[in-house]
Amino acid sequence: MHPKAELSVITSRAQAGKRVDELFPSLRGSVNLSFSAPNAKMLAECDVVFFATPNGTAMKMVPQILESGARVIDLSADFRLKDSSVWERWYAMAHCCSDLLAEAVYGLPEINREAISKARLVANPGCYPTAVILGLTPLIEQGVADASQLIADAKSGVSGAGRKAAIATLLSEASESVKAYGVTGHRHLPEIIQGLELSTDKAVGLTFVPHLMPMIRGIHATIYANLTTGDVDLQGLYVNRYAAEPFVDVMPWGAHPETRTVRGANTCRIAIHRPQGRDVAVILSVIDNLVKGAAGQALQNMNLMFEYNEALGLQALAWVP
Amino acid sequence: MHPKAELSVITSRAQAGKRVDELFPSLRGSVNLSFSAPNAKMLAECDVVFFATPNGTAMKMVPQILESGARVIDLSADFRLKDSSVWERWYAMAHCCSDLLAEAVYGLPEINREAISKARLVANPGCYPTAVILGLTPLIEQGVADASQLIADAKSGVSGAGRKAAIATLLSEASESVKAYGVTGHRHLPEIIQGLELSTDKAVGLTFVPHLMPMIRGIHATIYANLTTGDVDLQGLYVNRYAAEPFVDVMPWGAHPETRTVRGANTCRIAIHRPQGRDVAVILSVIDNLVKGAAGQALQNMNLMFEYNEALGLQALAWVP
Amino acid sequence: MHPKAELSVITSRAQAGKRVDELFPSLRGSVNLSFSAPNAKMLAECDVVFFATPNGTAMKMVPQILESGARVIDLSADFRLKDSSVWERWYAMAHCCSDLLAEAVYGLPEINREAISKARLVANPGCYPTAVILGLTPLIEQGVADASQLIADAKSGVSGAGRKAAIATLLSEASESVKAYGVTGHRHLPEIIQGLELSTDKAVGLTFVPHLMPMIRGIHATIYANLTTGDVDLQGLYVNRYAAEPFVDVMPWGAHPETRTVRGANTCRIAIHRPQGRDVAVILSVIDNLVKGAAGQALQNMNLMFEYNEALGLQALAWVP
Amino acid sequence: MHPKAELSVITSRAQAGKRVDELFPSLRGSVNLSFSAPNAKMLAECDVVFFATPNGTAMKMVPQILESGARVIDLSADFRLKDSSVWERWYAMAHCCSDLLAEAVYGLPEINREAISKARLVANPGCYPTAVILGLTPLIEQGVADASQLIADAKSGVSGAGRKAAIATLLSEASESVKAYGVTGHRHLPEIIQGLELSTDKAVGLTFVPHLMPMIRGIHATIYANLTTGDVDLQGLYVNRYAAEPFVDVMPWGAHPETRTVRGANTCRIAIHRPQGRDVAVILSVIDNLVKGAAGQALQNMNLMFEYNEALGLQALAWVP
Repeated sequence: MHPKAELSVITSRAQAGKRVDELFPSLRGSVNLSFSAPNAKMLAECDVVFFATPNGTAMKMVPQILESGARVIDLSADFRLKDSSVWERWYAMAHCCSDLLAEAVYGLPEINREAISKARLVANPGCYPTAVILGLTPLIEQGVADASQLIADAKSGVSGAGRKAAIATLLSEASESVKAYGVTGHRHLPEIIQGLELSTDKAVGLTFVPHLMPMIRGIHATIYANLTTGDVDLQGLYVNRYAAEPFVDVMPWGAHPETRTVRGANTCRIAIHRPQGRDVAVILSVIDNLVKGAAGQALQNMNLMFEYNEALGLQALAWVP
Repeated sequence: MHPKAELSVITSRAQAGKRVDELFPSLRGSVNLSFSAPNAKMLAECDVVFFATPNGTAMKMVPQILESGARVIDLSADFRLKDSSVWERWYAMAHCCSDLLAEAVYGLPEINREAISKARLVANPGCYPTAVILGLTPLIEQGVADASQLIADAKSGVSGAGRKAAIATLLSEASESVKAYGVTGHRHLPEIIQGLELSTDKAVGLTFVPHLMPMIRGIHATIYANLTTGDVDLQGLYVNRYAAEPFVDVMPWGAHPETRTVRGANTCRIAIHRPQGRDVAVILSVIDNLVKGAAGQALQNMNLMFEYNEALGLQALAWVP
Repeated sequence: MHPKAELSVITSRAQAGKRVDELFPSLRGSVNLSFSAPNAKMLAECDVVFFATPNGTAMKMVPQILESGARVIDLSADFRLKDSSVWERWYAMAHCCSDLLAEAVYGLPEINREAISKARLVANPGCYPTAVILGLTPLIEQGVADASQLIADAKSGVSGAGRKAAIATLLSEASESVKAYGVTGHRHLPEIIQGLELSTDKAVGLTFVPHLMPMIRGIHATIYANLTTGDVDLQGLYVNRYAAEPFVDVMPWGAHPETRTVRGANTCRIAIHRPQGRDVAVILSVIDNLVKGAAGQALQNMNLMFEYNEALGLQALAWVP
Repeated sequence: MHPKAELSVITSRAQAGKRVDELFPSLRGSVNLSFSAPNAKMLAECDVVFFATPNGTAMKMVPQILESGARVIDLSADFRLKDSSVWERWYAMAHCCSDLLAEAVYGLPEINREAISKARLVANPGCYPTAVILGLTPLIEQGVADASQLIADAKSGVSGAGRKAAIATLLSEASESVKAYGVTGHRHLPEIIQGLELSTDKAVGLTFVPHLMPMIRGIHATIYANLTTGDVDLQGLYVNRYAAEPFVDVMPWGAHPETRTVRGANTCRIAIHRPQGRDVAVILSVIDNLVKGAAGQALQNMNLMFEYNEALGLQALAWVP
């Protein structure tokens, strides 16, 4: 629905030849394309190519596409981590174009806007990192919390697992239940730490525990930080930090954002608490993992890269209920 | 379904005169009673009276019932806190029989079994306190975690709010969404602190954040504790502590319990993690809020009070899926 | 989000004085109004007034508003039935301005477009009637089905019950369960019959059974009709009937529309079947009860009344997933 | 939990060697077996073997098992249809032991009790057929409805699709949506027709439309039948027919059974309506597809075959909520 964008090719090896609206009938009347097999030459004729591919796929095609002059926004993890050895450890495969990692720009506009606007290659952030980094950046930037003892307890809808056949995400397995997963170490942990270290020169120590919620969309990050000073106007700090941001809404002190208030919207809603006045800040940060946590943020990055109004095509409000 | 129990009277002011199975058709063929208006004399003829009433109701009738020789298991909060001034602050009403608070036994068998077996009046624990206290007790008892900096991030199904008409818990409002609530202070906070202080002489400092999940049943408590010593066999500590407990299942190290594995069962499943080997323990503790967190635990207490096998009538397995 | 509309007043007796975005935080940053108590004079200054009020409310204010020159789109049932005695029987109250019933236009554009474009007062159709009438009209118009023996088995999400506190629509009562309701007679039955009789001079006999689904949005009507002739191109008949309709999508023969493909969209998707080639047509018709079944259709009617493009402000696609 | 049954072997080719409670942690503490690869000899040492295998699997092992003296209850479709050519058409494979079809007993106790009690081989009914046949049998037996024009609109939870990885039954695809499927012809259609023809010598004509509901468990069959006589006491007819049945509950006239009232129970609840007194009966029939529609009915059959009380091990009540 973006007024400046035209969808010219959509690829899928498995679905090549099938009409897009046959697989997704919600697009009947709106998308008149069929899937084509991925082909770097064809993609290179686009102004911008979005990758929403399994990890390890984009990095094989990106160099050729960039060379031809097209720009790339990669929604996979291939270009998110600056250190290829860290990437290789967490993703358990070799990185085939680590020379592009330095150039790739981490696409979180609220901390990287200028670099994004000049980028050829944007690494679109993960969903959890978007919610957690936006929730913690004001605290970390101002040095009012102990960066070495952070806790992020994050809850995600099942769509975060993608659209692949798997027993664990069947409705009969995942509804009417909650579980943590990846407590030992989730791939978004190094990404969050790297993202926070952009705002501080202290080492970041984070305990990150993701949970699967019985719902489709939404991330709720509940963040715990020990304040290094009790004498700080947390609410003012957040309000000021995000005053000019079109897609971050700092709610009134003590509010409880619901994920449904951002469902379908490119918004991150944040509320701050200090329970019983103790020196622990509790920050609640919610996004739609498929919008601000993925496709919406990718469009926001595209708008910056092509010098459109940053909010173009992204004004849709959340659906409630 | 308890083989030693017979349901002789069930009260409801609002439903008095209506057949129980008319309101709850799932009981057709099993319960042949009608609701009667509450009446202390009639209740006093029972061997044991269960209160599942709004806070402030049980305390008005309990003295008379106890006097007559019947015993009481109160599922409300009326007798849970030992200090009536704390109770009055959190529950915003006067306590009309604070003299019974000293006698009332906090009905968490895993920490209070002997006292329960001799009790006339048992205060059945709250759902969150059950999950959190069971999850933390081994750590706190052994003094291997810093009791002053505990965090419990708890997720509950909507049935925790009870069966009263309210907009916030309508399906259209509460499904497909997650939110925190009561971050500033939830009534279960002082109950959890009191329950933990039974196992330590140190002051307990706890940040407790409950969340509403889009599902009916289940609590998942994710607990964060700073270890005071890195040199501790956490798994062994939990396994030993709960070895003889019929309703606590310590899962293998690093497991991720799902709430559905205890749905309908009186079991608390616990798993322990130390992410990246840092000095933070992450304890995952799950229960069914309506069973181990309420009615099941009440039956377990009844079994203890009447010297039945503690598991009598409580052997039902969880439904999966 | 409609480019030609400006929201100037929004009323609520219960919420008067409260900011709209305090009750609906999803509107933060988009709606800068507070609720005001309903007041016919204030409403009369609008170009158009939408009523989304309990039945019996609109009829008390509409005459005064029309007199002042404003137009009205009523989403309640007050002006849907032409015969006030039928209305009074089904809605169990007196109709206080039955003289307007003749003028009121039933706002289903696909069967009443021209009348709507000239109307002062539009009765926006019920959600079930929208799905069922659109599903049956081609058959009934052409006289190829027996109008006296129709069956509509309809399934609706819980949001159809509105946003009022009620036990039956709590998440804990309505999720993980399905039930029929109103089998003896639902208020949408006479509305559907009246809507179908616009297309035939035969008497319509309909068995209508609504069901509550464990989800928020969506209606799936499964319609059974006995064909009076086996020799009919049903698919062609539907395709032709709706060829020019912007919001009716006739899917390929034998398709199975999912309600989620219209979630948030103003579209009605229809598919036709003749199982085993027998003389029974099965028509599947899906809408979003809150969009094509309510607010979206109201905007579609506004567009017609004010001579805008019928689809203005209504191009949003469904969210999948 | 059956007091007379001991689980001696549980097979799975894919999971051979893995502990059962590792795959299903809800069974920790209750089941001490590991999966073993299927092996007819080992199975033949059991008193009774339950098959819950894909269609086409049981028929390959059943002859050898029966020969050894063990009895078989097959939850797949292999022995449900008496006519192997019909089976082969609907299941698209050859039937390798059609000589056993005559001996196999269709395991719906309410219409076949005596034959089941003497059977070596019981074909456990499908979930939809159980709900629909129980809902229609009294009408058909008494000849008061037109057997040639029946309609069964059935709604099932997603667990009916089994526990296999598939995109269509992912939570993100199947929740918050409703769809019909298999309208052209579902495999349970010939099974229902065969089951109904046991009670009448008229030919049965049935339109059967199954739908997928966004929930785990439960079937709600809404059945429409044209009465051949208006002068019939439908309620009395059903009450009498099922008076002695332990697992069929005929609710009061005009009731609306909810699937959750049978969730986890082996009960079929039925209610009868005649909307507006017309000559159309609407029968509402609900079961738990995994209990009365599968495993519970299999135990009921086992009880009959081994001359135990028919309800042994099956007294569990539904969970509400």
